[in-house]
Amino acid sequence: MSIDGSERAVAHIFNSAVAASAISAAWEVGALDELKSQGALDASEFATAHGLDPSATTGLFRALAAVDIVERADNKVTPAVNFEEAYRTRSFFHWLTRGSGELFRRMPELLPEQNRTGDYYQRDSAAISFACREISSFCYDPWFDQAVEGLDFTPRVIADLGCGSGERLSQLLRRHPEARGLGIDIARPSLEVAASAAHDAGLADRLSFVLADVRDMTERPGFAEVELLTCFMMGHDFWPRERCVDILRRLRSIFPATRRFLLGDATRTVGTADRDLPTFTLGFEVAHDLMGTFIPRVTDWESVFAEGGWRLRKKYAIDIAVGEVIFELEQL
Amino acid sequence: MSIDGSERAVAHIFNSAVAASAISAAWEVGALDELKSQGALDASEFATAHGLDPSATTGLFRALAAVDIVERADNKVTPAVNFEEAYRTRSFFHWLTRGSGELFRRMPELLPEQNRTGDYYQRDSAAISFACREISSFCYDPWFDQAVEGLDFTPRVIADLGCGSGERLSQLLRRHPEARGLGIDIARPSLEVAASAAHDAGLADRLSFVLADVRDMTERPGFAEVELLTCFMMGHDFWPRERCVDILRRLRSIFPATRRFLLGDATRTVGTADRDLPTFTLGFEVAHDLMGTFIPRVTDWESVFAEGGWRLRKKYAIDIAVGEVIFELEQL
Repeated sequence: MSIDGSERAVAHIFNSAVAASAISAAWEVGALDELKSQGALDASEFATAHGLDPSATTGLFRALAAVDIVERADNKVTPAVNFEEAYRTRSFFHWLTRGSGELFRRMPELLPEQNRTGDYYQRDSAAISFACREISSFCYDPWFDQAVEGLDFTPRVIADLGCGSGERLSQLLRRHPEARGLGIDIARPSLEVAASAAHDAGLADRLSFVLADVRDMTERPGFAEVELLTCFMMGHDFWPRERCVDILRRLRSIFPATRRFLLGDATRTVGTADRDLPTFTLGFEVAHDLMGTFIPRVTDWESVFAEGGWRLRKKYAIDIAVGEVIFELEQL
Repeated sequence: MSIDGSERAVAHIFNSAVAASAISAAWEVGALDELKSQGALDASEFATAHGLDPSATTGLFRALAAVDIVERADNKVTPAVNFEEAYRTRSFFHWLTRGSGELFRRMPELLPEQNRTGDYYQRDSAAISFACREISSFCYDPWFDQAVEGLDFTPRVIADLGCGSGERLSQLLRRHPEARGLGIDIARPSLEVAASAAHDAGLADRLSFVLADVRDMTERPGFAEVELLTCFMMGHDFWPRERCVDILRRLRSIFPATRRFLLGDATRTVGTADRDLPTFTLGFEVAHDLMGTFIPRVTDWESVFAEGGWRLRKKYAIDIAVGEVIFELEQL
């Protein structure tokens, strides 16, 4: 690559970083959806209609145009060659720039060992719930639905560990109109979003929430009746190994009536060259490196189930971005 | 571009956003300098030598490798094709991800008009001073030196408006061993950095600092003796036009002995297509759109000097990244 080539390449890295924030913003203010459904928009009219600052709105579209997500001709904005793919993966960008933005901003401070004690990093848990709702819908839902479809019983009580915005539970309760749901999460802001969404969906009387750390919680009223246990996008927090085995055992004991446990999560990729990493993997893995969280491989998981008191019935290998997998477990 | 092509393109946008943070971090922890001077490093030894977490350090180099800034072979890290250019422009990345990281993280909240009142955004002024010191050294210093070299008098008292870390004043005092300096800045953290640097440089007795907003400050002890006035990378904060004229007039009156005023700043680019924007421009301009700060063009500046009581003696057009220019002014 010539010197000019690397000047363009580095400018593109810089502009991409600005555009990553712009993708999240364009999603939140509704610009991505309007472009998707209408095929075009007028930046000035869009700003007026949504009560946005006109200059800042133009800046937003400029950032998207710099990396070929949209094209701009004066105020007219249309989808460009990368639009569809950016639309599909917008939740990953949101996870990176909104939910984990503070983590990456403070990267230099999070590297030294001496700074890595106590609550040494911050993320925006409400933003992460928002993004994970969409991430879940295309990374897990089709396979999750298949797993639920295949159950040989009708669950009467369902608990979701790390329930976030509560979307998964709401779906399950709509499918099983007789069932009750229990959402458990460590983040109060997420539970507030979840409770409000449950209310809006008319599910408030069948759905309750518990603020607790799934990793070290003890028995609670209602736990003993749970027949279906689900846990998505948080299983990596159970690790390292010894601790994971302990947690699996404890879950078996505090949810003794569990007939099936659906455990879905990202797993550490193996064998992909740095420059071939798809959208999300690098951000997800570096974020967890910064937070000091081990991300297990599929084989790591497979090595703990029996010791933890569970039998692996089935494995759904999804592998959309970060080695997603759903393990279908039952009590040993 | 094929669908696969846009999948790769969007993954590259995502990975670039992670890498942008990694460039800033690699600069701060000394990895860029070690790669530059040694031509290679061992990631594991580097982590040990600098007291860094080994996994997080590997994550850092992975992020740089994903966009061809370094290459990784196990622990061995070497500069790749984009290294030199990323090294040259690292201060721009730092400005974006460290100094302005919080601004971009909150982009969606900064768009609605109703949120844009009071102190509606935050940036890290100490981080911005750190980056601007290096930005200044290659965007302005060669031309600034030329302007100072060409002065037809030896300034006895020099004031720097928006002095940040105080580097410019230190340079001037080293060049003029009889001169005294006055640094004025609105950000206390920057002045703390500046005072400590002045002390380390043995300039504490010749250099004093004033915490004030340059845009509406009044006479202070010492102002009347200032003969050389400098102001870099903050002139855009004087605008819009009416206000800028007022400020220029006030500066003329509270610094009545000024023989020369060197005013250097970025100006708004005109006529560059969104996708051809060089490193920095897009981030700088969108940031100011978000903050509601007008960035004047060169012609805007040229239209206010006479009204503000100053004569333009000379113009240094630099244009490295964001239409940098230095105006050399004298009292009308």
